[in-house]
Amino acid sequence: MDSTSLLLHLINKKFNVHALSFNYGQKHILELNKAKKNIAYLKNKGFDVSHTIVDISDSSSLLDSSLTNKNSKIPQGYYIEESMKDTVVPNRNSIFLSFLFGYCLTLYKKHNKKITMSLGVHSGDHAIYPDCRPEFYDKIFEAFSIGNWDSENLNLYLPYINNNKYEILKDALNICRNLKINFNTIFSNTLTSYNPNIKGESDGTTGSDIERILAFEKLGRKDPINYKKSWEHVLKNAKKIESEYNN
Amino acid sequence: MDSTSLLLHLINKKFNVHALSFNYGQKHILELNKAKKNIAYLKNKGFDVSHTIVDISDSSSLLDSSLTNKNSKIPQGYYIEESMKDTVVPNRNSIFLSFLFGYCLTLYKKHNKKITMSLGVHSGDHAIYPDCRPEFYDKIFEAFSIGNWDSENLNLYLPYINNNKYEILKDALNICRNLKINFNTIFSNTLTSYNPNIKGESDGTTGSDIERILAFEKLGRKDPINYKKSWEHVLKNAKKIESEYNN
Repeated sequence: MDSTSLLLHLINKKFNVHALSFNYGQKHILELNKAKKNIAYLKNKGFDVSHTIVDISDSSSLLDSSLTNKNSKIPQGYYIEESMKDTVVPNRNSIFLSFLFGYCLTLYKKHNKKITMSLGVHSGDHAIYPDCRPEFYDKIFEAFSIGNWDSENLNLYLPYINNNKYEILKDALNICRNLKINFNTIFSNTLTSYNPNIKGESDGTTGSDIERILAFEKLGRKDPINYKKSWEHVLKNAKKIESEYNN
Repeated sequence: MDSTSLLLHLINKKFNVHALSFNYGQKHILELNKAKKNIAYLKNKGFDVSHTIVDISDSSSLLDSSLTNKNSKIPQGYYIEESMKDTVVPNRNSIFLSFLFGYCLTLYKKHNKKITMSLGVHSGDHAIYPDCRPEFYDKIFEAFSIGNWDSENLNLYLPYINNNKYEILKDALNICRNLKINFNTIFSNTLTSYNPNIKGESDGTTGSDIERILAFEKLGRKDPINYKKSWEHVLKNAKKIESEYNN
């Protein structure tokens, strides 16, 4: 939902978007099909978006994480708990970003105009994922810039870097209203759980689930995706986990 | 030959080496088979080396370069000429390094000991490839370090960063003598040309060829690989190109 909200955000700012997704061997690979569906929906509405899915799944053997390793279990609990560190894929955002930067340089050469790179990283990830923190982006963008020709023609735009999941969702809701996009259609085509079944349904108990469920609740909306149990049930559980963490 | 020399260098320093190669859609993909052969040869001699080849070739559509694009011709000439910039793969070393860093974090977790990352970058590439310069490595290692847990257990070792191709080769020759490794066998299993035929033979006219040929000449050795023409012919041509560039 972060990437999807970002997509809406960029469309709303009238960017021509070249979206990039990665198959990195994630168990929740279904997110790529969801992204495809949303992009088809938005193109059909006349918005200017292309989409490339890059298969780097062969690298998953190098990078141990419960997100990719079939023998590791995805942890359950509150999304900023220490145990969530199991879901870190070592250096993942650097890998994504290094491809993205190279892609943007290629786009710059092709179109001969300045290119804006953008990612949906947000503050909810700061505790567990150091590669979602602002100081990381400042530093890596600087590194890439001195490592490449023409990098003065790229800039980095991270609109959500200091926002939480609720604020992201609120931005997306406002944009949907503004652009006459169906919020529920869009967000039924997103996948947040790290542990979905093949239909994309989850128990609503992984850290990322909890964070999402509480964001919808705060926005005063029912999450349009299906969970294995009722919305009331997963919501009650998410609140319980949140309060247990805070006490 | 840089990576191969590095491998010898690390073996000589008694590291247990986990070598990493990438299929990134390079036209000179044969280099991977050459690397495999050398590693098999070294293992057979009792040295501790494992080798992983990671296929990220699907990303080549994102990253335009004459090294990967079938419709672009590899430039010929002296290796520090402006025209060689066509052979830059945008952000390539960042991509390699980001996987390498993640892999080293995984190795650290598995073996619970400090890990040294190493690359065969050298000064001959500084003019054309900004991602081979020392300041780039300082900065990107710093970025990765703040973007990951446990990064204090990794360090970066670039023994050739201020050496040229001749000095690298000289190091390799000394090590081969020291460890009783056949220098010619090893270097017949390397590929330097950006434009080889399917047998790995080249005209000896791309920038990387010229740089290699002149390094062997300076060392006082005949290059053990086959070129499409005689060693005398490619050497004469390399010297001519060098002197044209310098005048």
